[in-house]
Amino acid sequence: MDLLQASAEAIVQVRSKQPLIHHLTNYVTVNDCANITLAAGASPVMANDIAEVEEMVSLASALVLNMGALNPGMVSSMLAAGKNAARLKIPVAFDPVGVGATSFRRETAERIIAEVRPTVIKGNLAEIKALSGEYHGAKGVDSTADDGDAERVAVELSQKLNCVIAITGKIDIVARDKKICRIENGDAMLASVTGTGCMTTSLIACCLGAATDSFDAAVTGVAIMGIAGEIAKERLKPGEGLGTFRMHIFDAVSTMTPDIFMRYAKISRGGA
Amino acid sequence: MDLLQASAEAIVQVRSKQPLIHHLTNYVTVNDCANITLAAGASPVMANDIAEVEEMVSLASALVLNMGALNPGMVSSMLAAGKNAARLKIPVAFDPVGVGATSFRRETAERIIAEVRPTVIKGNLAEIKALSGEYHGAKGVDSTADDGDAERVAVELSQKLNCVIAITGKIDIVARDKKICRIENGDAMLASVTGTGCMTTSLIACCLGAATDSFDAAVTGVAIMGIAGEIAKERLKPGEGLGTFRMHIFDAVSTMTPDIFMRYAKISRGGA
Amino acid sequence: MDLLQASAEAIVQVRSKQPLIHHLTNYVTVNDCANITLAAGASPVMANDIAEVEEMVSLASALVLNMGALNPGMVSSMLAAGKNAARLKIPVAFDPVGVGATSFRRETAERIIAEVRPTVIKGNLAEIKALSGEYHGAKGVDSTADDGDAERVAVELSQKLNCVIAITGKIDIVARDKKICRIENGDAMLASVTGTGCMTTSLIACCLGAATDSFDAAVTGVAIMGIAGEIAKERLKPGEGLGTFRMHIFDAVSTMTPDIFMRYAKISRGGA
Repeated sequence: MDLLQASAEAIVQVRSKQPLIHHLTNYVTVNDCANITLAAGASPVMANDIAEVEEMVSLASALVLNMGALNPGMVSSMLAAGKNAARLKIPVAFDPVGVGATSFRRETAERIIAEVRPTVIKGNLAEIKALSGEYHGAKGVDSTADDGDAERVAVELSQKLNCVIAITGKIDIVARDKKICRIENGDAMLASVTGTGCMTTSLIACCLGAATDSFDAAVTGVAIMGIAGEIAKERLKPGEGLGTFRMHIFDAVSTMTPDIFMRYAKISRGGA
Repeated sequence: MDLLQASAEAIVQVRSKQPLIHHLTNYVTVNDCANITLAAGASPVMANDIAEVEEMVSLASALVLNMGALNPGMVSSMLAAGKNAARLKIPVAFDPVGVGATSFRRETAERIIAEVRPTVIKGNLAEIKALSGEYHGAKGVDSTADDGDAERVAVELSQKLNCVIAITGKIDIVARDKKICRIENGDAMLASVTGTGCMTTSLIACCLGAATDSFDAAVTGVAIMGIAGEIAKERLKPGEGLGTFRMHIFDAVSTMTPDIFMRYAKISRGGA
Repeated sequence: MDLLQASAEAIVQVRSKQPLIHHLTNYVTVNDCANITLAAGASPVMANDIAEVEEMVSLASALVLNMGALNPGMVSSMLAAGKNAARLKIPVAFDPVGVGATSFRRETAERIIAEVRPTVIKGNLAEIKALSGEYHGAKGVDSTADDGDAERVAVELSQKLNCVIAITGKIDIVARDKKICRIENGDAMLASVTGTGCMTTSLIACCLGAATDSFDAAVTGVAIMGIAGEIAKERLKPGEGLGTFRMHIFDAVSTMTPDIFMRYAKISRGGA
């Protein structure tokens, strides 16, 4: 099965298996993450207190760890849930939001990577470079450095951490070891809606929870959000703006079919 | 006044009295709960710290306790606010979200019930059964067990706890002692939008805050959400999905009138 | 440059400079604040833990302190971030949500004002009067006392605290010392969407972050929300309600231009 077909199949599998996706995420976009998980056909649960996260994650098919609005209690919960997930072979999607911005974020991301060993790590280039030790400092959480060496960075970090790396940007890159995929879907308006990055990670987790191969899951999650952005943009009428665009994203994900996916997807093998 | 007229009248009373509804709820759907409270014509306040909840609830006409994303601090706040509400005869609507999923949730729900004595408890069948000691384990927070004995479970728990029990599902059941009502409104898409359950509890609290009889308040709150789901579905055009559907729910509640309510409501006496 | 032109120019400056706006705000409307900041063309960051707020604010061009859902940890974070902002000459917009409702809110507001010295304070008349010591008690957080002496209250508090005071209501008032501006934009539906007040403060901060004069920034932020409310209302079709209205607000802000602003703005000098 080629990559495009595997991705299209993942969409069907999520709707069929309705995996429970446990999120430890941030208060900014948690509602969006729950709704996009439902729109994909999976089931979200957002419990985040140390008193119950280990028990809750044991019921889940995948775990999201999203650093968007950190605090020490959340870090403890993320480590507890993440380690239990690892022990139970439940896949983990990690979103190191704004990792370059503060030392608290850098230290937290390092601990999560070392102690949880995420299945997929998704970030923009500035975030992934910060994890690689190549870059410090980010313009808040929405940095979009894009210097053309995303493929190299993704492959190197994937090899170092033995996980899938997804770098979002104008062109999205997914790498596992030397295997590379480029996704050229998306629309510039996606960067002007909060939570589109967080929701992408939730979509990756939905695919992981439906037992999609980890590389294919990352490709599918990233591509669904890009395609949803294109469809949302196409449907905008004159005078409409970010409010309507944002609503269309949820429409597009909830009505996504393998046919629509295959018609829009611009997925190609990367690398030499 | 029959039940249907009482419910239609409650809609008018909420808009007329604009009761202040104090919520202790979860970070996933708190914005939705505030907006649905406003859409119904009431006024929301979401203060949740132990430093002020007792003072805040004393200003309110009803209190919502929603367990969606628990932590020990929130449990303390819920107990403090709830006990002060009980002392001041302010009605309390309790939503034991995901109570079957973890022991932390079961213990918290038991404490709230024992110490606050809620006026109305609303949950899906799995949650209400967990409170009844009949069922443990839930697929996260969206379980929809539906085994036909909802009426029996509702009546028994109502009698045991001396409060109104509302069980949402394909057919919704409201019971107070042996008095039973069945509500057959709703649409399957409601289960694919996060917060529709939480918002139902907020709507029940709006009616309680407008001094509607507790049984009628539960029926009205549950029926408004079901009817809003039907109207939202009717207005969907081809290609539209969960984003548009979700927006229509707020439209439908904010434009709800007694006439619309009476035209859509499928409310009947349950029991033998 | 007159006030209207300065406001129109601020819209362009925000889109051009894309300032980073650090928010310490509440879980009810944080998503709305992030999205309105993006809609205005600025960049939001919502980090709120004491472990990183001082470092994060040093990267920002303006800071929002919003008291919507307080707790002691958030108070500590607000004071730490606010004091570092003051030290670094980063402007601060303060929204004392519901300050009249509880003693915890009154004490917190007093500490923030004394220790941070905000650049702009924005509230409804009940909130600003509570800060002035003229009024205690508020119907939750949405009180709309409107007794005609808003101009006097604004001028007096501005002189006392040496900052810009913005009072929102049917007519909005902005004052800095004896300089007064009246803004007569807006629509009654704005009061029925949670977060429109919080978003107004975010818009003020966007202008502050783009180096707009503090008086002009307050006028512009307040006027943009009022105009967005009018445009949102105009676009409503029969049967549509608060859900669609709310979406249109984001559309209107994201498509706002100086031309649209100048066509709608009802801004006049106040005072004698």
